[in-house]
Amino acid sequence: MKRITVALVGVGALAGAFTTTARLSARPDGVATSIFGIEIPPGYRDWQMISVASVGAPLNDLRAKLGNDIAIMAFRDGTRPFPDGTIIARLAYNQVISEENNRVFRAAAEQRGSPAEQIEKLLASSFVAGAPTNVQFMTKDSEKYASTGGWGFAQFTNGKPDGEVVLKTCFSCHAPARDRDFVFTQYAP
Amino acid sequence: MKRITVALVGVGALAGAFTTTARLSARPDGVATSIFGIEIPPGYRDWQMISVASVGAPLNDLRAKLGNDIAIMAFRDGTRPFPDGTIIARLAYNQVISEENNRVFRAAAEQRGSPAEQIEKLLASSFVAGAPTNVQFMTKDSEKYASTGGWGFAQFTNGKPDGEVVLKTCFSCHAPARDRDFVFTQYAP
Repeated sequence: MKRITVALVGVGALAGAFTTTARLSARPDGVATSIFGIEIPPGYRDWQMISVASVGAPLNDLRAKLGNDIAIMAFRDGTRPFPDGTIIARLAYNQVISEENNRVFRAAAEQRGSPAEQIEKLLASSFVAGAPTNVQFMTKDSEKYASTGGWGFAQFTNGKPDGEVVLKTCFSCHAPARDRDFVFTQYAP
Repeated sequence: MKRITVALVGVGALAGAFTTTARLSARPDGVATSIFGIEIPPGYRDWQMISVASVGAPLNDLRAKLGNDIAIMAFRDGTRPFPDGTIIARLAYNQVISEENNRVFRAAAEQRGSPAEQIEKLLASSFVAGAPTNVQFMTKDSEKYASTGGWGFAQFTNGKPDGEVVLKTCFSCHAPARDRDFVFTQYAP
């Protein structure tokens, strides 16, 4: 495996004064990895759910956080820092209106005698998951990623890794959650 | 197990002309079940994710659909009707604003030079999962629930089953999805 070392400067522009050295892998087998050397973890879509969220305009998405077994166990036990091997996945989908759902919502709301204005508000603010936007991963390796709190970060769009420009702010944005090992998401019951 | 048979009339008020006979269980061991005789399936919180969604005002929730192994396999294989033993869980949480997330979003947006109005819009429409509202289940048993498309329905609030008033519209609302075995949710990639 041939690796090119890339120094990331200005990672801490937003929330601190961190710098890090990450690696850009140029693998001879053509599998592209993130600048932290992270590939898409096999089977991540089958992982258990940590929580759900949504981000507003202009993203307008619906998102799910999934965790591998090490992550889920740590969330439930409250183990912090997360053990090495923890991987947290953030899946995101475009928010889309489901005409099919809305017909049912409308009928039910009319049946209940809801005012028209209230019904329109309900229909305009109800969403299902549309096309996926991108997938992000946080991978814990306290030695490999020592300069970024023990976490490696990756984002994949259409299965392809996004590069340095996207990833250089990951750690600085997560820095305010330092007391919770840089993880914002909390386990939903 | 002592059972009281309750006839549900008017189930099809919204979307069809269905009637059904469901059962209200009064178990001697005190475990309350839904009028379809459904208990909370053990371990449902660990099931794999089917998709995510949100429902607008006045509910303002974030929701996840999880499925047991039979459900997940059927979703992926496109098996319809769903096999007996399929269980689909719908978890819902109050949408809440995370001040902690929003501080990070604001800093990042200001860093990008986003207009103030756009930043406020982003912050006002970004949510994380707050307190759970209720959990619903659809359970497939083509014989037991023959009169409701093979599906039994249940809703639990704070671990306690909601009764006839809540459940009597479940099947009629799902009727428009008859071509997909009465299931609206589609598997998110």
